[in-house]
Parts: sequence; C-alpha cells; structure tokens
Amino acid sequence: MAPLAQDPFDWIDRHHARRRADGLVRTLRPRPADSPLTDLAGNDYLGLTRHHEVTAAAAEAARRWGAGATGSRLVTGSTELHARLEAELADFCGFEAALVFSSGYAANLAAVTALAAPADTAGPGPLLVSDAGNHASLIDGCRLARAGTAVVPHADPEAVRKTLEAHSGPALAVTDSVFSVDGDAAPLAALADACRAHGAALLVDDAHGLGVLGDGGRGAVHAAGLAGSPDVVATVTLSKSLGSQGGAVLGPARVIRHLVSNARTFIFDTGLAPAAVGAALASLAVLRREPERAARVRYVAAELHRRVTAAGRVSVRPDAAVVSVRAPSPEAAVAWAADCRADGLAVGCFRPPSVPDGVSRLRLTARADLSDRQIEEAAATVLRTAPAA
Amino acid sequence: MAPLAQDPFDWIDRHHARRRADGLVRTLRPRPADSPLTDLAGNDYLGLTRHHEVTAAAAEAARRWGAGATGSRLVTGSTELHARLEAELADFCGFEAALVFSSGYAANLAAVTALAAPADTAGPGPLLVSDAGNHASLIDGCRLARAGTAVVPHADPEAVRKTLEAHSGPALAVTDSVFSVDGDAAPLAALADACRAHGAALLVDDAHGLGVLGDGGRGAVHAAGLAGSPDVVATVTLSKSLGSQGGAVLGPARVIRHLVSNARTFIFDTGLAPAAVGAALASLAVLRREPERAARVRYVAAELHRRVTAAGRVSVRPDAAVVSVRAPSPEAAVAWAADCRADGLAVGCFRPPSVPDGVSRLRLTARADLSDRQIEEAAATVLRTAPAA
Repeated sequence: MAPLAQDPFDWIDRHHARRRADGLVRTLRPRPADSPLTDLAGNDYLGLTRHHEVTAAAAEAARRWGAGATGSRLVTGSTELHARLEAELADFCGFEAALVFSSGYAANLAAVTALAAPADTAGPGPLLVSDAGNHASLIDGCRLARAGTAVVPHADPEAVRKTLEAHSGPALAVTDSVFSVDGDAAPLAALADACRAHGAALLVDDAHGLGVLGDGGRGAVHAAGLAGSPDVVATVTLSKSLGSQGGAVLGPARVIRHLVSNARTFIFDTGLAPAAVGAALASLAVLRREPERAARVRYVAAELHRRVTAAGRVSVRPDAAVVSVRAPSPEAAVAWAADCRADGLAVGCFRPPSVPDGVSRLRLTARADLSDRQIEEAAATVLRTAPAA
Repeated sequence: MAPLAQDPFDWIDRHHARRRADGLVRTLRPRPADSPLTDLAGNDYLGLTRHHEVTAAAAEAARRWGAGATGSRLVTGSTELHARLEAELADFCGFEAALVFSSGYAANLAAVTALAAPADTAGPGPLLVSDAGNHASLIDGCRLARAGTAVVPHADPEAVRKTLEAHSGPALAVTDSVFSVDGDAAPLAALADACRAHGAALLVDDAHGLGVLGDGGRGAVHAAGLAGSPDVVATVTLSKSLGSQGGAVLGPARVIRHLVSNARTFIFDTGLAPAAVGAALASLAVLRREPERAARVRYVAAELHRRVTAAGRVSVRPDAAVVSVRAPSPEAAVAWAADCRADGLAVGCFRPPSVPDGVSRLRLTARADLSDRQIEEAAATVLRTAPAA
C-alpha cells in the first residue's frame, strides 16, 4: 500500500489537547475484583450484583444455555430463559408485555425510533416532546427517529401541555423517570395527564426507578399509577438495581409486538447473553422476597443528602438513589473525587459533556446494603475532602 | 387520570395488518436449552458458545467479578478483566489498542459518530462514505453523526475513489468486511488504497471476519494487511465467533483514547457484564490454541455452497461463514425455513427489511464443529425442502 502522505486522524491530537486544557479528558481506571473501596459510584442500588443467588444464577445460565445467545432474538437468540424474564418483568412492573434488549441504551433507541417513525407509514412521524434533561440514549433515539423533536424545559408538564396544544398531529412525550445527573424525579402523573388530554403517548425511561421507587421497587411508573396504561410505555435497565446487564421495554402487548418486527436495535443485535438473563431473573426473585431493599436504598440516599446539606453543600433532594452534590469546577470535582478515593470512598464525578447545564458534580449513589456506620463514614469523607463551598 | 379519549397507538394495529398481508410479521420462537435441531441459523461460527472452557470462564467471571459491571466504563464499569480482554483483542488482531462495548451495535455507533463529528470541533465533520450493503448499526451511526453521508454502490472501490476525488474535506469510508446478507467480502485492500490516496480514513466492521478469515482467524482486516495501519479502524463483535456478547473497536491508541472521552454509547452505557468478558477471553485462548477452527468453518461454508449450487440453487460464493440461498418470495422463504425446521435443521430466513435489495433468502451459517456427515445431511435437507427454483 502507498505510504501515508496525509494523516486522517491528526485532528484527534488537537482535539485531545483542547480537552486536556479544559480538564475534560477521561481515563479508564480498571478495578480489581476485590476493591478495598466503599462504592458510592456504581449503580448497584440494591447490592445485588455480588449477591450469591444472583452470581450463581448467572453461572448456571452460562453453563446450561451457553456463553452467548448466538444470534438475533429473531433467529436463534431467543431462549426460554429470555421469555421467562420478559414474563416476570412485565408481571412485576405491572405491564402487559416486555421485551429484553442487550442494553438499556438499545432499549431506548428501539422504543423511541419504533414508536416515532415506522418506516412504511405514510406521512411524518409523531412529534417527539423530549425533556431537556433526558439521558443520552433517549436523545440519540430522537435524533435517529424520522420525526420532529421539541425539547421542552426540564420536568415541566406545563411546557409539555403547551407544546402538545400547539401541535395538531400525533405526539410522543419522552422523559426519564429519575434524572441521572441530579437524581430528581419527573412529574409523571402531570405529564401523563397532559399527554392524555391531547391524545399523545408517554414513554418513560425508568432506569433509576426500578428497584428503588414504587411498591417493593416496582418503579416510578408503577408508583404513579401508570403501569399497564394503554398509552404508556416504559423502559428499564437490568444493569442497575438488578445488578446484571441489559434493558427492556414494557408496555401494551401490541407495542411490544410492534418492536419485535420493527426496532432495529432488536432485529440487528445479538440477544442478551444467558448469564445476564439468569442474573436479572434471580435479582427479581430476591427483590420479591425482600421488598424492604427498595425502602432501604431510599433511606440511605435521604440520609446522605441530609448530612451533606446540613454541612452547607448544595444538593438537590434525592427522589431515588442518586445524590448529586455541586462542585465549583470540573477540576475541583475531579480533585474532590480523587481525595475521596484516597480516603477509601469511590464516588462518581460528572463533568461536561455528561451534565446538561455544564455544572460539575460529585455523584453519590446510595446502596441498600450500606450499614448506618458506612453511611456516616461516607458522608464524613465527602465533607472532609470538600473544596471551599 | 382522565379516561382514554383518543388511542395514541391505534396506528400500530393498522401497520401490523399491512405487514401481515405482506408476509413480513416476525414472531419470537424461544428455544429450549437442549434443542434437537442442527443449528445452521446462529452465528456461533467456531462452535465455542457451549465449549466447556468458555462457559466455565463465564461462570467463574460472574462469581469472581459479579453479575454486572455496575456502571459506565468511566465510573465503576471497568474491571481488570475488561482491560485484559482489550489487550488480548488488540494483540490477537494486530492493532495498537482496543475498547470493549456492550454490543457490536454500540461499538459501531461509537466508532462512526466519534470519528465523524467531535461535538466541539469547528466546521462540518468528515464526509462518511458508506457501502450500500452495510449493517444497520453502521447506517444508524451515519444517521446519528453530524456529518454528510454518501452511500456508494456495494463493494465498489472505484465508486469510493470517485466520491473521495469529488470531495475536498476530510472523509471516512465505512464498510462491513463480510456482508451479513450474502456472505460476500468487501474489497478491503482496494478500498484502503482509495482512502489512502485521498487522505481518508477507513472503518471496517469485521463482525463476520473475526475467527473466520485471516491467519488463525485474526479477521479480514488482518488478512488484508491493514491491521495496525495508522488510518484504519476496525470493529468486531464478541457474540459471533467468540460465542459471547459485546463488541469492540480496534485501532491506533489515539483513536481508542478519543472514543473513551467522546463516544456516547461508551460513556452513557453500563460496561459489558464480566461473564461475557471472561467468555470472550476464553474463546480467544481456544482459538489461539486451535487455529484450525478458522479453516474448518471456511471449508464447511464452501462445501454447503458447493452442494446447493450443484443442485441449481442461486447462492453467492461465500467468502466467510455465511451461505445465502435465494428464495422466490418472502412467503416461500418462510415456508422453506419451516420445512427445514420440521426436518430437524434450523436455518435463517432473511426478508425485508433485513435485506437491502428486497430479495428474500435462506441463510445458512457454517460452524467449525459440524461433521462431514452433518454437512451432507444439512445440504440434503435444504435441497429436499426447496421451493421450485
């Protein structure tokens, strides 16, 4: 081949230098199997990812069903184990049907695109009405959909109502149930009212609600009395409260049937690995047996919030498991998280572009299996290492 | 809540009725753990998904590392096991670095979008030059990227050359190495020449090449002498030859570093579950020890093709493991696949919209662990159940 006369990736180095100057470069820090850190950074809200029943179910599923699903769910990638998980998820969350994907990201892309713009339906798809604080996967779903998108102010049902009023065709409102950055909840009941008044559908990403909110952890949609509604679709992830991997769409049977034949991230993706399916099923069994885990994680979050705000830190009151504490700058947030880590506490650090408002944050995630002593020590570490307020 | 006055999903039933009339409705058929069928439908090309070392590694990883990765790879989702798999994938395939994703779909979205349009780079992104037969995930990547896309005729390096000649700015050519529908290979060396002559980069999805093509299954990019080139990036899947789940991007270290900080399906997705990481590592170890598996799967594919074309069926000569046999209609393809199944043989059935040219096909995937007797019987079953040619 001819020698390289022109370097097509030279812009990457310039881009990297700018990002480094702005304190925005990220690096991976692989963790060992037995980390000595107390984890307030992950999303293992219920402490199930290392639960012996959950890991045993993952191991057993790999042995019995194989290490992979071997193909698209439409070809060889659907096992009876997938079907069992789908039935159990639908039943637990109160929906007619469910469909499992290899990730929550894929589930969200599928739900938005397949409900917005079936390729062979004449005319433009419905208007997508999307909360300004929505997760990246919902935003990418809106970008991929062949439909117009109206981005509305964060957690503002009146804005949704006005947008729907001004629009004459079909519409789909799209929102997180609990927003990942500040841990605040969407006003689901008011959003559903606004949608129903205008014949619009509502799609809710309950990734941070499942296992944490609602009766025994049935999620924010269930808590709002919207589970099973004919005009409501929810997505969930199997990788947070359920300690596994994957995602799912929950909704009316006809919506699920529609996704099977039309959602590209379902049709053209390999099915979720059996080990992840088995683990999620085992986590649901534990959660059914021990519903108090959901209440405990909410208590832990409230207690972390109480302690940091009592010391003068700015933090939105957590509606679920995520406690977000503001930092004065990206660099300060990085240094704060590093100081916590040096003191044995792993915390998250959200910086641009992961924060919609450009404000960097320390992000603490509550876990149901933290002891009162661990909560106390974690809050003390966060406060001891804090930058000047 | 107000009663439902207007049904926002009524269009789904109309859409479904039309699709049913066209023979295009898909349904899931969950399989048992011990299917009596001979599988020529999945993508377990090397027969590794149930290999005892691979399933044992998946089980052990779940027990040792947990059932899930617990967070984004940038937060808690990177384990030392992920780092080990990335080093091993890069080394095996001949690239400087690798980055693992939760699916091949996510890896493709990441590679196309992050190489096409860094959000904070001034001006339009590079032109994407995309093969007309590319996989859905590459197409969605082009749709998501903030860049112009030129779709060029299938497997046509001259068309790529002309498109690059007529374009003055930076460009990225995007292609599958082996196309999923007909199993034909892209002319990678000629494409790379065309790219290099015009200072463009080349992105190759080697999902169907890894484990099948190249020295000991190192893939189509390695076979073309392009692995490790400073202007070439490859993506692979862990869910086909490696029998697991997930995907990866392989390329120059600076490209991988760029993805870590910029690819949305990396930043905003939970890391791949440890069981899937462990399984892929074990499969790579088996493949290093038994490189003859790659040659065997190519032989099996060639033999299946020889037998069906000798009987007058239309099938593109397979360049890898996929053998595609044309069917006269979607309905005939469905009936043909069902008749094979009734005779104990699982085969794939590709219909619109999974086929770019609208032609339905029976799709046979070769497996390295098929015996000569199984090849003979499978071909006989396909021919015995075939519709009138």
